Amino acid sequence: MTKTSERRDRLRTDLIDAAERTIAASGLAGLKTRDLARTIGVANGAVYNLVADLDELILHVSSRTLHRLGMALASADDDAARPPMERLIASALAYCSFATENLELWRALFEHRMAPGRTTPDWATSEQMDVFSHVRQPLGALLPTLDETARDITARSLFSAVHGIVALGLEQKLVAVPPDQIRDQIAVMVRAIVAGLDRATSSPPE
Amino acid sequence: MTKTSERRDRLRTDLIDAAERTIAASGLAGLKTRDLARTIGVANGAVYNLVADLDELILHVSSRTLHRLGMALASADDDAARPPMERLIASALAYCSFATENLELWRALFEHRMAPGRTTPDWATSEQMDVFSHVRQPLGALLPTLDETARDITARSLFSAVHGIVALGLEQKLVAVPPDQIRDQIAVMVRAIVAGLDRATSSPPE
Repeated sequence: MTKTSERRDRLRTDLIDAAERTIAASGLAGLKTRDLARTIGVANGAVYNLVADLDELILHVSSRTLHRLGMALASADDDAARPPMERLIASALAYCSFATENLELWRALFEHRMAPGRTTPDWATSEQMDVFSHVRQPLGALLPTLDETARDITARSLFSAVHGIVALGLEQKLVAVPPDQIRDQIAVMVRAIVAGLDRATSSPPE
Repeated sequence: MTKTSERRDRLRTDLIDAAERTIAASGLAGLKTRDLARTIGVANGAVYNLVADLDELILHVSSRTLHRLGMALASADDDAARPPMERLIASALAYCSFATENLELWRALFEHRMAPGRTTPDWATSEQMDVFSHVRQPLGALLPTLDETARDITARSLFSAVHGIVALGLEQKLVAVPPDQIRDQIAVMVRAIVAGLDRATSSPPE
């Protein structure tokens, strides 16, 4: 690797570090390339030698957030011998804890939108799917009659439902679940969804 | 009413109209008091004779959005004689349709945050509760053993779960439910949650 490309890689990491700290402190709205350039000690325009645009920079920060979320879920779901319902609830509660402890970075995952006409690159989408195995696996064990397609869509709905309880609850928006009851309600809802689906999928066709 | 206060009321309505159109077209990020002042034909500073600040203005727009959401839910849930499960699913699907058809105004309900240290005024919170009767009533009929407190918290969780499916689905974020399956999955999940809770609350204590 040449000295120039080494320097570029180092500056690029500095830039992503600086963007991550800024989002963690004040959210996406506070992110300005001018401030980031000053922080890492380059001219304004030089930022665009390191990343194509602000969208790409934010995707790199979100990639780190997803990686840490994946590790948090893996650490909550670290014993494949545990009853699958416990594994599923542990993953859902770990999602809630991660969101609470990384509020602005977690919000940025959802509030960032690509500029009009741009789509999310494949590498970013594929990382999003990886995080997800901690829902799909225990759900498959709990609802063994579901085929793979049905299990996948059910896991997405279940994840989305937990996300909704966390999202409204942490923001205290609309008719949110009060903060001191979020974790209880996540467990109640995960159990109810699985029990309800189990009844629906195991009853004989009429 | 004096001519001056009539003029003020008219300008205030013009201001809220202009803010509503701007958010509907380009979201909260596009909202600038300078542009709004120009649109309604007053000096920049005069905006602050009409509303205290941008937060208050956005709350007034959100108040209109909630009012229209309430009417959309009421119109989906217009026959108290229908089976309560049908009523509940109709309300959940109406929520999904409303979000789809009013994407930016609906996003603004959740993405707007009060300036640090400011809390949402009581009138705004109370409006948020009103919208909610179309979940609480049919849920109470479906799960008659729940006391009022339990029914209220369960209705919040159920609403949050549906919100999560809609929110991730419409944004296609993380492991979202694909757009063509959102409505089916909402119905599947609402049925599963109620069936699962019914089993949990009606089984005798051990």
